[in-house]
Amino acid sequence: MPPMMTITVDLGARSYPILIGSGLLGRAGLLDPHLRGRDALIVTNTTVGPLYLGRLRGMITKGRVSSIELPDGEEHKTLATTALILDALVQHRLGRDGVVLALGGGVVGDMAGFAAAIYQRGIDFVQVPTTLLAQVDSAVGGKTGINHPGGKNLVGAFHQPLCVLSDSETLQTLPDRELSAGLAEALKCAIIADAHFFDWFEGHAAALLARDAGALNQVIRRACEIKAEVVAGDEREHGRRALLNLGHTFGHAIEVCAGYGTMLHGEAVGAGMAMAARFSQRLGWFAPAEVARVGALLQALRLPVKAPRIALDAFLAAMAIDKKVLGGHIRLVLPRTIGHAVVTAEFPAGELQGFLRAELAG
Amino acid sequence: MPPMMTITVDLGARSYPILIGSGLLGRAGLLDPHLRGRDALIVTNTTVGPLYLGRLRGMITKGRVSSIELPDGEEHKTLATTALILDALVQHRLGRDGVVLALGGGVVGDMAGFAAAIYQRGIDFVQVPTTLLAQVDSAVGGKTGINHPGGKNLVGAFHQPLCVLSDSETLQTLPDRELSAGLAEALKCAIIADAHFFDWFEGHAAALLARDAGALNQVIRRACEIKAEVVAGDEREHGRRALLNLGHTFGHAIEVCAGYGTMLHGEAVGAGMAMAARFSQRLGWFAPAEVARVGALLQALRLPVKAPRIALDAFLAAMAIDKKVLGGHIRLVLPRTIGHAVVTAEFPAGELQGFLRAELAG
Repeated sequence: MPPMMTITVDLGARSYPILIGSGLLGRAGLLDPHLRGRDALIVTNTTVGPLYLGRLRGMITKGRVSSIELPDGEEHKTLATTALILDALVQHRLGRDGVVLALGGGVVGDMAGFAAAIYQRGIDFVQVPTTLLAQVDSAVGGKTGINHPGGKNLVGAFHQPLCVLSDSETLQTLPDRELSAGLAEALKCAIIADAHFFDWFEGHAAALLARDAGALNQVIRRACEIKAEVVAGDEREHGRRALLNLGHTFGHAIEVCAGYGTMLHGEAVGAGMAMAARFSQRLGWFAPAEVARVGALLQALRLPVKAPRIALDAFLAAMAIDKKVLGGHIRLVLPRTIGHAVVTAEFPAGELQGFLRAELAG
Repeated sequence: MPPMMTITVDLGARSYPILIGSGLLGRAGLLDPHLRGRDALIVTNTTVGPLYLGRLRGMITKGRVSSIELPDGEEHKTLATTALILDALVQHRLGRDGVVLALGGGVVGDMAGFAAAIYQRGIDFVQVPTTLLAQVDSAVGGKTGINHPGGKNLVGAFHQPLCVLSDSETLQTLPDRELSAGLAEALKCAIIADAHFFDWFEGHAAALLARDAGALNQVIRRACEIKAEVVAGDEREHGRRALLNLGHTFGHAIEVCAGYGTMLHGEAVGAGMAMAARFSQRLGWFAPAEVARVGALLQALRLPVKAPRIALDAFLAAMAIDKKVLGGHIRLVLPRTIGHAVVTAEFPAGELQGFLRAELAG
């Protein structure tokens, strides 16, 4: 049996393991300690279901198992689609001891987790992420939610999974763009917290794009370790956890203005991180040589480093509704050196406007 | 200034006060320690808004205040109406530090609290209950949620308010049926936890129906004290809190089968409590004389003591989807003496079927 790595997200009574390895989907007994024979609903989508639903079902030997396939895509991460999951939970009569399993990428995980958080005021759920983005980021940490026409992830709940099962073999069928999008979120962890990981990234960009199994397992492991450490210290984002939003305030504005689906979330985060690096440089906080390294690595990972052409007013309005705006001040995560970033609203508003005017000119 | 009573719900860092008195709405400064000048959205309905919205707005002297009026009625306690509140929160650009104020009865409080629980993964909210049912029960304890076609309160969240402001003067305009419905939930507290309160109730039924201010303040105070004590010991209903569901498993089934709005929630709970008393008697657990006292007091409070005519199969199906069903076993709250009840699934299923067959025959 190929090796499996386990990382623990340390949240006291709600601590849970992240299981990482190649070929974990289908391995008998792996989920038994978490499901304990209880009734389960698997939530997946029309892309992932045909590939992996059978393998996941095969792992569950006790209890009633039902499933629902949702349409695929960020544009379906809505309250209306969440209602379909809730309907399925009622239809299949899951009780308070029922379990939801989210099989898919970030959209499926966020929505299924949110449905689990609000069904009967909260039932258990398990994350089975099948995209790199979900494996390195969205499946870990308990943020669940949906989009609102006014902004990304404006509605949701903190709800920690029972367990995260990341089978890196699923990445072999992932489209190239989605692979790069996932790498953007992993790179984010390096920029905010681990210069050595950034160095490693530079040396392994080619192996990662070639889907080398060892490199993929490593990148998932290290990103999860960093995220687990940050989340354990600040589960509800009163402080340090906000660092994980590097690139996201710019990135969300790009997604909202460009229209969901035009750019993948991870791609928008990639462009957002490049913008955060340049804005930090403009403030004199981030050295030009390091900005250049960030930009070069993003490009090596086939990620965008610029926002598409967007009107300044629309971009600012989209930033203003972003959740990270507190009391009217736009707070940004800005890198200071590779491996260290700060969350701050302490910059002149005029600087931000001037910066965006130049950036968005195209 | 008329006196104000304060009861504390003791939940550590999330403890909060319940302020009870006549004429509290409009009293300057009362909400300032909780709102602290932050932006607020008042959620009310088309019945309560014209009566009390102006008084509540007048209490808020700092920060931006906006409001939304929802349609009135249990049939509007839906995900779709919740979406209207979320839209208003986005439209008025409330940030993570914004506050929702729920001005109205249980439907408004449950829905506004749920919207606050999921907007930006949870923002603060204040309960300003204007019905007796909300003042003695639903505004206290942090249960928020909405109905699903498959069952009552099937979707929701635990989310404690910052403060509960109960002005008993609002009860002077309450329709008679709603007054009685609120008394049912207060009586529930007496039956599960306080025989003296039950005695007091028997002596004050007429004063309560005559809306004597002193009697109303007393009934709100004592019901809140009991609920606060139970909730403080078991916030998420892993044990003792389930006692507060006395009459609710039968009651919810009545509501679902009769159609929301046919019977008020409190009326259905009244009938449900009478049924629980009779079923407990059938099992030999509750003395006939005490069953008679419960029935007589319910009737003195102008509450129903029987379910309407409902088909047995439909009733059982509605009970089976109730949240209190765990792993397929129907758990019921059953009184043992006045002032003491138990939560149990330890009764022969055949007894329940036989009991319901006799009860529902009409």
